[in-house]
Amino acid sequence: MTNRFFRAAVAFAAMALVSAASAADNADPLPSWNDGPTKQAVESFVQKVTDKDGPDFVPPADRIAVFDNDGTLWVEQPAYVQLIFALDRVKELAPEHPEWKEKQPFKAAIEGDMKTLAASGEKGIAELIMASHAGMTPSAFQKIVGDWLAATKDKRFQRKYTELVYQPMLELLAYLRDNGFTTYIVSGGGIEFVRNFSEPVYGIPPAQVVGSSIKTKYEVVDGEPTVMRLPEMNFVDDKTGKPIGITQHIGQRPIAAFGNSDGDFEMLEWTTAGDGARFGLIVHHTDAEREYAYDRDSHVGRLDKALDAAVENGWIVVDMKDDWKQIFPSVD
Amino acid sequence: MTNRFFRAAVAFAAMALVSAASAADNADPLPSWNDGPTKQAVESFVQKVTDKDGPDFVPPADRIAVFDNDGTLWVEQPAYVQLIFALDRVKELAPEHPEWKEKQPFKAAIEGDMKTLAASGEKGIAELIMASHAGMTPSAFQKIVGDWLAATKDKRFQRKYTELVYQPMLELLAYLRDNGFTTYIVSGGGIEFVRNFSEPVYGIPPAQVVGSSIKTKYEVVDGEPTVMRLPEMNFVDDKTGKPIGITQHIGQRPIAAFGNSDGDFEMLEWTTAGDGARFGLIVHHTDAEREYAYDRDSHVGRLDKALDAAVENGWIVVDMKDDWKQIFPSVD
Repeated sequence: MTNRFFRAAVAFAAMALVSAASAADNADPLPSWNDGPTKQAVESFVQKVTDKDGPDFVPPADRIAVFDNDGTLWVEQPAYVQLIFALDRVKELAPEHPEWKEKQPFKAAIEGDMKTLAASGEKGIAELIMASHAGMTPSAFQKIVGDWLAATKDKRFQRKYTELVYQPMLELLAYLRDNGFTTYIVSGGGIEFVRNFSEPVYGIPPAQVVGSSIKTKYEVVDGEPTVMRLPEMNFVDDKTGKPIGITQHIGQRPIAAFGNSDGDFEMLEWTTAGDGARFGLIVHHTDAEREYAYDRDSHVGRLDKALDAAVENGWIVVDMKDDWKQIFPSVD
Repeated sequence: MTNRFFRAAVAFAAMALVSAASAADNADPLPSWNDGPTKQAVESFVQKVTDKDGPDFVPPADRIAVFDNDGTLWVEQPAYVQLIFALDRVKELAPEHPEWKEKQPFKAAIEGDMKTLAASGEKGIAELIMASHAGMTPSAFQKIVGDWLAATKDKRFQRKYTELVYQPMLELLAYLRDNGFTTYIVSGGGIEFVRNFSEPVYGIPPAQVVGSSIKTKYEVVDGEPTVMRLPEMNFVDDKTGKPIGITQHIGQRPIAAFGNSDGDFEMLEWTTAGDGARFGLIVHHTDAEREYAYDRDSHVGRLDKALDAAVENGWIVVDMKDDWKQIFPSVD
C-alpha cells in the first residue's frame, strides 16, 4: 500500500465511522430516563463540554467522571452488599475459628443477631471485614467474591446483586463514555471487592476503581512471588477520603461527580467547585415500591447534609420515582 | 441511515483501518534499536501475545506493561532529578526559613555540601523532600515542578531533563501501545512529580502513573475546597512497594516489566512469575561516553541482585552501548 493510499484509507475510515456515529445519535442514549429537567440537565452538560466551538469545551483527557457505587450504581438496602458478604464469609470460616462462638462481634455475626452487630459499631464491622477479607492474594479474594456473587440472591428481589444495578445509571455510564469521558468508580466499599464485577457489570476496568483498602505485603511464599492481603486498614475511601483517593489514583480533579449520600458530599463539593463547566448529581431514593425510599434518617446511605448542599451548589437531584422509567435491567 | 447501512459502514471502516495498519507495519517501530537478540526478544514477545490464533495470545485488557522511570526512561545520574529539584527548592525557600542556616540537612543543601548531605542518609533526604514538596495543592506543586523543569538544564548535557529521556524507550512505549498494551510508570519517585511531564513526554496520562507519595488532607480553605499536601510520607513505591503499588492502582498483575536497578527487582520478579507469556527487561547502563556506565557499585540506581536474577529468570538485559543506536531524542 502506498503512503498516499494509506492516508486516504484512514481518512475514509474516519469519515465512515463519523457517519455511523451520527446515525447512532438518533437513538435516545438514555431510554430509561423520563423526559424532564433532570434528563435535560445531563444532556445539556454533555453537549456543552463536547461542543468544540463552545465556551465550555473540555478536551477528552479532562473529561473525568466519578461515580459512587453503593446506592448510586447498585442497591445498598437493607445492608451494604459487602457487609452481607462479610457475614456469610464469617459463618463459612466459623468452623476453623471455634473461639468466635464466644467472641463479639463474631458471635452476633454467626447467630445473625443484627442488633448486637449494629451495637458493635464501625469498630465491630471493621473487625468482621478484616477477619473475612485478609489472608489471601487479591486474585484469590476476587475469586471468593465472584463465587459468592454468582450464588447469592437478594431476599426481596430474588435477583443476584449484580442484577440489582440501576439501568438508568448503566445508560448514563455508556453515554458519558460514548462522549469521550473516562468513568471511574470511587467507592467507600473495598477496592478489590468492587473490582470483581466492575468490568462485566459497569464496563469499568479494575484500574478505574478507587475504593477503601486493607494493607498488602509482598513476599515469596514457597518460591511463589505473592501479594498477600493483611488484616489491617490501609485507606478509607469515604467522605474526605474520596477527594484524597481521587487525587492519589486519578491525579486530576473530575468535572462530574455522581453520588447518593453524605459520604459523597466532599467528592461532589470538590468536583463542582473547580473552574469551567462542572456537574454534580445525587440519586435520591424516593421509590419504596420499585426500590427503597430513604434519606435523612437512614443508617445506610444517609442523605442529609448533601441534600441541603445540592440546592446551594446547583447539584441535580434525581427523584428516582419520577425520573426513572425502569430501575433494574430486564433479565431474560 | 438505515441500520443495515450503518453496520456495513462500520464493517467497511474497520476493514479500511486494518489495511491501513498493515501498511504502517512495514515501517520499523523501533528504529533506534540495533538489530540483534535484544530487539528480537522484544518483537517476538509482542508478536506472540497479539497473535489471536497462537497459544500465547493475551487479550488487550490484560496487556499491562509497567516501566520504572529513573534510569529506565530518563537519566538518573549524577543524582535523581527530583533530588536536584528538592535542593533547588530548599535554596529558594531558604529566605523564609532562617533557621535552616544552622540546621542539617538544610544547611548542607543550601551550601551545596553534597558530602554532608549524603551522610544524612535516607532520613535527611526525606526531610528535604517533605520541606520542599508539601504545603500546597497537587496542581500548585505540579506548576512549580513544571516551571523548574522548563528552566533547568543538566550540567553535562546542557539539555532540559525532559530531553534526557531515552529515545529507544519512547519508541518501545509507543510500539507497545500500538499493539494494544496499556503502559504505566511505576516509579520510586514522587507520583505528582512524575505526573507533571508523563503525558507530554511519554504519552502516559496522570492516572497511569504509580509512585511514592506524601499524605494529603481535604479541607475547605477560605471557602475553597482544597486537597493539601502534608509533610508526611504516605507510600514508598520502591522494591517490595512496587508490586504493592501496582496492586493498589492497577488491580492486575502486569505481563511485562521494565526496570534498571535493584529497586525494580520485586516488580520484575512478580510480573514474570505469572502464568502465560511474560516479559522482563533491564536497562544496563554500559555507555560512559554517550550516557553513563554503572551497576553493582553505584549509589544511584545500583544494579546488582537484579542483574544476577536476570540470567536465572530469563529477563532481557539491554546493553545500552551495543543495543541502542541513539540515546536521546534529536532536538531541533
